[in-house]
Amino acid sequence: MTKVTTGATMSLDGYIADASHGGFEYLFQWYENGDVETPTADPELTFRTSATSARHLRALTERTGALVVGRRLFDITSGWGGRHPLDVPVVVVTHSVPEGWAPENDSFVFVTDGIESAIARAKAIAGDKEVGVNGGTIAAQVVEAGLLDEVHVDLVPVLLGSGIPLFADLKIAPLQLDGPFSVVEGDGVTHLAYRVRPAA
Amino acid sequence: MTKVTTGATMSLDGYIADASHGGFEYLFQWYENGDVETPTADPELTFRTSATSARHLRALTERTGALVVGRRLFDITSGWGGRHPLDVPVVVVTHSVPEGWAPENDSFVFVTDGIESAIARAKAIAGDKEVGVNGGTIAAQVVEAGLLDEVHVDLVPVLLGSGIPLFADLKIAPLQLDGPFSVVEGDGVTHLAYRVRPAA
Repeated sequence: MTKVTTGATMSLDGYIADASHGGFEYLFQWYENGDVETPTADPELTFRTSATSARHLRALTERTGALVVGRRLFDITSGWGGRHPLDVPVVVVTHSVPEGWAPENDSFVFVTDGIESAIARAKAIAGDKEVGVNGGTIAAQVVEAGLLDEVHVDLVPVLLGSGIPLFADLKIAPLQLDGPFSVVEGDGVTHLAYRVRPAA
Repeated sequence: MTKVTTGATMSLDGYIADASHGGFEYLFQWYENGDVETPTADPELTFRTSATSARHLRALTERTGALVVGRRLFDITSGWGGRHPLDVPVVVVTHSVPEGWAPENDSFVFVTDGIESAIARAKAIAGDKEVGVNGGTIAAQVVEAGLLDEVHVDLVPVLLGSGIPLFADLKIAPLQLDGPFSVVEGDGVTHLAYRVRPAA
């Protein structure tokens, strides 16, 4: 079965961005606080982390077969310049195919009939690998639909005070997870992984 | 120098209580999910945790010499029935001494001239041991005053969705911490400890 996971870098007080959708200079310090390079599909984006976090990033890359993201994230990044840094196809959940884009190509598939359809499509693409879900609102929808298997948190020692939560507007809170089943100590980041309990 | 620390059990999304000041049945499961007993000064309160968390609780008890709490926490707990479970004196920050209580006795000292005075008083009581600060609002005031040395978080795998943050209304966010300098994996809880950076 293709696993569906979500992951994010999160402040100690639970935010994946500050209230102005920024704060990344704090959250993503661990992407550049070491000397072990992890290249990405974007030639201008290379992570320079501790050896531990580099292993963590490489494992993430190797196990990810497709991504599901919200339209907002696609727009903010301008479609990652044409190809996601993880070098996998991205299924975009949207109300309509953005102007100037084909409904699907090797890099992007625009799904307009909802989150369950998007997850099914991404699973078909990922095959034996995992489907990663990105963006707090989309992640919340996926867990609410009972389709999420794991939550991966890169916990960063900063208090942002306010901001965008990991799961925005989660309608099924309180939600108990199992774990962490993995705790990896990086430098300025703690990599934690939890399992979502199967619906009773 | 007497160290000043704050600690709390926190949900993965950063809350020490839900929006109704509850949610403790989720947050404090780790207090009773094992078979190693840790007694407290309250004969009716014994923790039953994993061996790992029991060691963590014992270390906390042994290193704590005094507590500083807000009036709200004192009122909610009705003064812990006369003595705090950690069996140390508690300095209560308040606008006025509560009716029926002496300004100070062996168990409680009521300080009406502010947080710095309360911390100084608690340090004098604690001596070589630590001063623990409890309650999100008070903890925020202490870190804002530059008086906090460490933040200890018992991170629990539940998403509460909304609630009371670890540092309520933190005026100096974003605040970067160092660490974690300690990561201890319990059962249903991850014990993390961070250092507050000294003011530049």
